[in-house]
Amino acid sequence: MAGVGIPSVDGLIEKLKRLPGVGEKGARRFAFFILGQPKDWVEDLSRAIREARWSVRPCSVCGGLAEGDLCPICSDPARDREVICVVESQEDCVAMERHRIFNGRYHVLGGRYSPLDGEDIPSEALASLRDRVERGGVQEVILALAPSVEGELTALAVKEALDDLPVKVSRLSSGLPVGGSIGFADSATLKLALEGRRGM
Amino acid sequence: MAGVGIPSVDGLIEKLKRLPGVGEKGARRFAFFILGQPKDWVEDLSRAIREARWSVRPCSVCGGLAEGDLCPICSDPARDREVICVVESQEDCVAMERHRIFNGRYHVLGGRYSPLDGEDIPSEALASLRDRVERGGVQEVILALAPSVEGELTALAVKEALDDLPVKVSRLSSGLPVGGSIGFADSATLKLALEGRRGM
Repeated sequence: MAGVGIPSVDGLIEKLKRLPGVGEKGARRFAFFILGQPKDWVEDLSRAIREARWSVRPCSVCGGLAEGDLCPICSDPARDREVICVVESQEDCVAMERHRIFNGRYHVLGGRYSPLDGEDIPSEALASLRDRVERGGVQEVILALAPSVEGELTALAVKEALDDLPVKVSRLSSGLPVGGSIGFADSATLKLALEGRRGM
Repeated sequence: MAGVGIPSVDGLIEKLKRLPGVGEKGARRFAFFILGQPKDWVEDLSRAIREARWSVRPCSVCGGLAEGDLCPICSDPARDREVICVVESQEDCVAMERHRIFNGRYHVLGGRYSPLDGEDIPSEALASLRDRVERGGVQEVILALAPSVEGELTALAVKEALDDLPVKVSRLSSGLPVGGSIGFADSATLKLALEGRRGM
């Protein structure tokens, strides 16, 4: 008998195992926790999962998380239009925001350039970034990409895509720990990296 | 701005934070993973959570996981009726089963006796265990309880509840690592503990 032997529970465990960093034991633990909760709570969890996935879509300008056409940042007139911070994912955008050290706007690539993994930056993301710069008013594009091989390659690809445009392109300084990710950096490290950004 | 700033996503993160061992960062990671999955997959996950919770109920005999009236173990005529293994939770029952070292039946207490935490074994669970023994045919009740203070107290309470009945009560030997749980023991340790069980 693989699993728990109860079809609906085994089905749930199989699903939960797909969550990042969750193995067989973790999934089983989550499943038993869920089975032990009141039905109302479980109903709410089930609905929250659907609702988030259905109501969220990429911001039509920056590709960040939005419930309507624009994300809260792109629709905020107080945010500086002259600086665009380029991040790999919506998650990295949220990580930057959490530290409240940047008042410009974002551009989410939705991918990275990693030839060894066969990954590339979606061409629409680069095209829409060019478009935003070409429309004028953007003084600087800051690349907030991880200090890894893939991050370097991605940074170079973005830099290249903007090479003929009159915009300063900079990159977060290597205050970030090598091999780490934007999402797990602490405020001080991220702030240093933002201040120490270098032209490229 | 606390959270991500998107109501449906923040709602989801709040829910996911309730899962055991999951903090703010873990919940955010799960949420972004879910947002990045195809809608079909998310729909399936949402439904699997509801379905498991709705279709599972305690076995009317042993209190284990069941989709109908009886669990797969209680409805299996090949399982030995003479030995009942008492466990604290349905999860511990599944953990025991996974190792395929026991061919008897189970009794799930659904709680433990821990006066300091104000926890007690549900009296119905003890009553139904007595009932099963009184009906006859049960030679031995094996207590598969964690080797902790609460486990000892729970074992004593179960032993006491059965004291006037003509049944042997034994306990898993202390091959189990102190402070650990039934769920995380390896097969060899559990097997040793089962073989070395002592009368009490």
